[in-house]
Amino acid sequence: MLIGSGNVSTHLFQAFSKVPDVEVVQVFSRTFSNDFPSNIQISDFTQISEADVYIICVSDNAIASVSDQLPFENRLVVHTSGSTNFDVLNAKNKRGVFYPLQTFSKHKEVDFNEIPICLETEKETDYEILEKLAKTISKSVNKIDGNQRKALHVSAVFVCNFVNHLYHIGSEICKENNIPFHILQPLIEETAEKIKTLSPEEAQTGPALRKDSKTIEKHIDFLTDSTQKEIYKILTNSIQNVEKL
Amino acid sequence: MLIGSGNVSTHLFQAFSKVPDVEVVQVFSRTFSNDFPSNIQISDFTQISEADVYIICVSDNAIASVSDQLPFENRLVVHTSGSTNFDVLNAKNKRGVFYPLQTFSKHKEVDFNEIPICLETEKETDYEILEKLAKTISKSVNKIDGNQRKALHVSAVFVCNFVNHLYHIGSEICKENNIPFHILQPLIEETAEKIKTLSPEEAQTGPALRKDSKTIEKHIDFLTDSTQKEIYKILTNSIQNVEKL
Repeated sequence: MLIGSGNVSTHLFQAFSKVPDVEVVQVFSRTFSNDFPSNIQISDFTQISEADVYIICVSDNAIASVSDQLPFENRLVVHTSGSTNFDVLNAKNKRGVFYPLQTFSKHKEVDFNEIPICLETEKETDYEILEKLAKTISKSVNKIDGNQRKALHVSAVFVCNFVNHLYHIGSEICKENNIPFHILQPLIEETAEKIKTLSPEEAQTGPALRKDSKTIEKHIDFLTDSTQKEIYKILTNSIQNVEKL
Repeated sequence: MLIGSGNVSTHLFQAFSKVPDVEVVQVFSRTFSNDFPSNIQISDFTQISEADVYIICVSDNAIASVSDQLPFENRLVVHTSGSTNFDVLNAKNKRGVFYPLQTFSKHKEVDFNEIPICLETEKETDYEILEKLAKTISKSVNKIDGNQRKALHVSAVFVCNFVNHLYHIGSEICKENNIPFHILQPLIEETAEKIKTLSPEEAQTGPALRKDSKTIEKHIDFLTDSTQKEIYKILTNSIQNVEKL
């Protein structure tokens, strides 16, 4: 049973639909969504059916109130949020977390099999069912407690959201100079690929690491946007302050 | 003819070695290097042979002085630097730039065929020979003028060097919380992969974009390092200030 109709719910639905042993009994969506079959969509909590697991995929702020409105008790209810404790869920149900560590965009398919799923349950006895479910769609299922999950979520902001913003800055600089951004794609991929075999410290290159102050100055002069200049400076300093192993 | 024995020279040598039609006549290296066959290594400019192209792969600051020491005139001499004009090369020779846009680490092989090579020559008539040479090792050969190359180099710092530093920060946060960093690898790869089909603006996700101030505050509280906090804040603000299309 999926509750919510956003990106996470849509991608989970697509993944579970391919598993013969798992049936998505219903999808709760306040307004009708074309991303799910109409015959399993409900928009009223009184219509809710029985299911082994209820996965709440709504924005962090709405998790508590949605869990309060569930018209049953003592069933397994989990949310999918990286930065939220399981205890925001109403205690009338058995509680847990089913956190897929990935970036979901509406129009980009993902291979769920490669996505690490981070699980936590309030009671040890509920872990097994959640693990069994997660393993039907992913080969990377991890027991992660609340504090670790928070750390992962913060890390994910750095290595995904912030990284993507640096891609954005790169593309802006290219645009201003009539360079097609795709020229940078092989470099972007190699940078991501490299840390499979090297640590990020071993993989670091560039003027900041070399303390090549002449190039650094030229780059800061070249940038016209004050925020870009500031980001350039703070990241350069931060690279130079990494303690050598 | 390759002049220099660093990462760029080593990787170029490996790439050219696979091309039957190209012979690396000599490699100039001040000290003996195990990365090149001993029979083609020289360490004295007086020993230099004739070649169609001389590729200077030394640190930016040394390019001018190396080119001054070349004991010949009117041959094609290029450097491989992203942030340096061709006119630092001594004008007694025909000048140009052969800039491979990639991050090179000693112990990480790269597929040169996928690496964009950015070419510039002082005289139009020299372009063809440089292009012919570049095309033997890469399918992406681009005519890029000095200003564009500077822009590309700055962009590359953002999308490669700075991105790798964000990977480093992610790995530090994981380390402090006993989480294996490789859990983040699929997210890192998907983030790099996504912008093949979406623009970075379309691909952006996360609390900054959602203006989810509760999560942003929790994350800043969670971070213990003051530089990490500062980077978190400035990148969050920068994401929120991207003009919507």
